[in-house]
Amino acid sequence: MAEKKMGKQSVKFQLCPYIIGSASVVGKKEGQGPMARWFDHCLDDDIYGEKTWEKAESKMLKEAMKKALAKSGKDKKEIDLVLSGDLLNQLMSSSFMARDLHLPFLGLYGACSTMAESLLLGSMLTDGGFAHNIIVGASSHFCTAERQFRMPVEHGNQRPPSAQWTATATGAMVVSEKPSGMGTVGIAEPDKISHQRHIRVDCGTMGKIIDAGVKDPNQMGSAMAPAAVDTILNHLDDTGRELSYYDLVLTGDLGYIGKDIACDLLKDAGLPSRDVEERIDDCGTMMYYREDQDVHGGGSGCGCSASIFSGNILSRMASGELSRVLLISTGAMLSTISPFQGESIPGIAHAVALCTE
Amino acid sequence: MAEKKMGKQSVKFQLCPYIIGSASVVGKKEGQGPMARWFDHCLDDDIYGEKTWEKAESKMLKEAMKKALAKSGKDKKEIDLVLSGDLLNQLMSSSFMARDLHLPFLGLYGACSTMAESLLLGSMLTDGGFAHNIIVGASSHFCTAERQFRMPVEHGNQRPPSAQWTATATGAMVVSEKPSGMGTVGIAEPDKISHQRHIRVDCGTMGKIIDAGVKDPNQMGSAMAPAAVDTILNHLDDTGRELSYYDLVLTGDLGYIGKDIACDLLKDAGLPSRDVEERIDDCGTMMYYREDQDVHGGGSGCGCSASIFSGNILSRMASGELSRVLLISTGAMLSTISPFQGESIPGIAHAVALCTE
Repeated sequence: MAEKKMGKQSVKFQLCPYIIGSASVVGKKEGQGPMARWFDHCLDDDIYGEKTWEKAESKMLKEAMKKALAKSGKDKKEIDLVLSGDLLNQLMSSSFMARDLHLPFLGLYGACSTMAESLLLGSMLTDGGFAHNIIVGASSHFCTAERQFRMPVEHGNQRPPSAQWTATATGAMVVSEKPSGMGTVGIAEPDKISHQRHIRVDCGTMGKIIDAGVKDPNQMGSAMAPAAVDTILNHLDDTGRELSYYDLVLTGDLGYIGKDIACDLLKDAGLPSRDVEERIDDCGTMMYYREDQDVHGGGSGCGCSASIFSGNILSRMASGELSRVLLISTGAMLSTISPFQGESIPGIAHAVALCTE
Repeated sequence: MAEKKMGKQSVKFQLCPYIIGSASVVGKKEGQGPMARWFDHCLDDDIYGEKTWEKAESKMLKEAMKKALAKSGKDKKEIDLVLSGDLLNQLMSSSFMARDLHLPFLGLYGACSTMAESLLLGSMLTDGGFAHNIIVGASSHFCTAERQFRMPVEHGNQRPPSAQWTATATGAMVVSEKPSGMGTVGIAEPDKISHQRHIRVDCGTMGKIIDAGVKDPNQMGSAMAPAAVDTILNHLDDTGRELSYYDLVLTGDLGYIGKDIACDLLKDAGLPSRDVEERIDDCGTMMYYREDQDVHGGGSGCGCSASIFSGNILSRMASGELSRVLLISTGAMLSTISPFQGESIPGIAHAVALCTE
């Protein structure tokens, strides 16, 4: 068997699984932001016809998965496994989605790193021969996250300028051992559909928990930036690649403050300033209009990188605009009670490298 | 590449990874039960020298992993990945354990099915060539679970007879691509150490969410039994095996009520009564003395099947008493708020088959 372990924390794929379908369902505010045209469905009302925010989030995730499945050209019977997670206690959004889809399910928790975790695990299980087709996904919802981690939205509490805005967003992809003639990812422009490029998962890096000692839950970007940097540096070291190998190195979700810190740390680590400035971007800074949408520190939540990656990024890869992309979703693994017990915020980041052909 | 997908929900291993080390750390009450002699460490005081129950649970998990690693004969540098989960919101126990161990980490949530989920995923990633050695584990703690899911223990609330007792227990194993000459699992009897058998992971089955419509969170056994039965039947169907192929089919944690329901359902499904009665057992019924320890419905919690499997079962496999074992950890994927939103309890169960040589 070919060696698939690479360096200390990375794995390389032999089969290089294909992403044959992707879809995203997002909230109203996200549908008014700069990413809107790449989402499959932007809600008019974030309650989505349900009685609770949690049920609305679960329905959004289920719809994103069903849309990704439809776009992949596969039948539900051909799906071997669903890998998914969210921010809710006991994965309420994913658990009830999986109940309704009625497919084998493994629940994951990586806070906002969940999209990269599920895509990386899905790619390993496909590449390892344990599944032909896997649906991977992640979700978040502003109102469920505010209630669980801070205050119910009805409370109207004020947020400091460093706080990030949990995106009401979900993203899902179908990872497959083979390309699909019918598959479409993201939002394909009609005249370009016939030229759509295949997107493959190339390699990945599993992150360690990095705790920079930040104790303020309103400073998530600062808490997660060192984990993103650690994973990027380990990825480059393990693969022998330069930052310039990638057209885009996309973190998610450090926000405005965290992105600046990550870029500074990467430059301090000796990476060329120009590459860092030209190639690094962050989903948390892409989701909303900074001046007009009043989100302070930028976007966050598992759904932020999940929806932007499933929409904007895969669309741009399919059309040929981007060839090589590294996704590094970042998570803050604090709990609702760990700050009260004097604990700082453990950060984590996993990386997945994709290429087109 | 050889086909590793088997039937609808199962996978078979090519390499058949080895369990080269295992350990368990449990609480005081568990140390007074019938499983005590197989645990590596039974605490005198469940706070374990920490200031909070959550920190105590995290420390127990970390110690179980460190003991399993020491017993495997491997160095920490040889470990590629840690896979772990627990019942705490945002996986507080696992996240802080992973911070201290400082190894690549993927967080999992499968409620009380987490031990089988982590062992199954760890076996797939090892068999797939993505890791040489992986530590897998799970934990639970009576006091953290009571506070989070019911009432703080200081409240002294009464529990109905059907309620299960969350075990203060952790279990960890080292899954490896190769056997280890130095490895010891469970509690080896000194005179038998030289005859210790190798334990390998043979195949596994990923479960679907099964919701039987049970809405009472004090009836977890009833809620999870149908999921256990669904996974067992799918496993037998996918592998073409009979129940009698296994020396022991071990569910965890259905408790007294859930075990009876599962056995009835298996007989109704046409499995031979004698096989069901002789071969099925449940970790929730094994952890405590039923008459003397006042645990009502039996044991539960991720740590219950994790510690009994890492201790009693692996010891009995290593000594030759058991040759073929099927572990089916079962989880109730309800959240703390889903019952208040009118939802029933989604159950899940994953199966891992082990054999000795």
